[in-house]
Amino acid sequence: MRVLGIDPGLRNTGWGVITVDGPRLRHVANGVIQTTADGTSTDLAQRLSQLYRGLCAVIATYRPDLAAVEQTFVNKDAVGTLKLGQARGVALLAPAEAGLPVGEYAPNAVKKTVVGVGHAGKEQVQHMVRVQLPGVTFEGPDAADALAIAICHAHHMQGRSMREARPKGVA
Amino acid sequence: MRVLGIDPGLRNTGWGVITVDGPRLRHVANGVIQTTADGTSTDLAQRLSQLYRGLCAVIATYRPDLAAVEQTFVNKDAVGTLKLGQARGVALLAPAEAGLPVGEYAPNAVKKTVVGVGHAGKEQVQHMVRVQLPGVTFEGPDAADALAIAICHAHHMQGRSMREARPKGVA
Repeated sequence: MRVLGIDPGLRNTGWGVITVDGPRLRHVANGVIQTTADGTSTDLAQRLSQLYRGLCAVIATYRPDLAAVEQTFVNKDAVGTLKLGQARGVALLAPAEAGLPVGEYAPNAVKKTVVGVGHAGKEQVQHMVRVQLPGVTFEGPDAADALAIAICHAHHMQGRSMREARPKGVA
Repeated sequence: MRVLGIDPGLRNTGWGVITVDGPRLRHVANGVIQTTADGTSTDLAQRLSQLYRGLCAVIATYRPDLAAVEQTFVNKDAVGTLKLGQARGVALLAPAEAGLPVGEYAPNAVKKTVVGVGHAGKEQVQHMVRVQLPGVTFEGPDAADALAIAICHAHHMQGRSMREARPKGVA
């Protein structure tokens, strides 16, 4: 089973693909999709289009079975939150249009699953991603976050399938 | 020339198509794309997919040449703004992926163009949309807003093309 993790942003969207084989996780690929402002009035729609096509290309190349997207919002200002929301909408849409089920995880849930505590720092998260995906190198911090989201989703899906496999009424 | 206006929202996205023939505007169609929560964990991505497909169907049916999207944000809470942003990202993406230039207008700019003042009420906007598109009936208030956005874009594009047609150095 292959899992795609996405850490969305208008400027930089991190992505990471892992394979899940029972308890074993393996790194497949990671990267960052960047969009740049060209200063025209139709700028934003074009950037969202670049992001969408970048994610569609990742999905076509690595053919994941599941996807998960980080559930962040910027608290400091409405403009920043709206901007992030627009990128996030496209990040949710691309795997959904490819027929993948799309999970969502809050940053604290990702940290809790990957590191064991909800308030871990970026370095701790990256360290634990390296431990769980031996030999991985990151295309950047957003790609590392995306791999953490993929790992989180893999663990949650395994927990769910174990629960589903267990006969009803058996603890 | 046909213009598509979009008033995005996760639950209700209004759309309206008009034709522009010199100073004459004509109503073509309007409607509302609704998405409903099904309570599953992959819910949001599915709703964004419904919205995307709805807008793609409108574009395929009415073949607009230009699109414009309202530039709103919710000030009251980050969660609401993020939600709107996600719908808005998809509303910008659908026409961009169809190859249309996509303009954006703040609500006050729409009101100023359609009514003449930036702080007009909903009834005033709907009245002026009816005046400018004789015989129109609205599928709902979001569809009326979408037609107002299309009218605003038509006026702005005409202003621009008149400026572009004017030889340089001539006032």
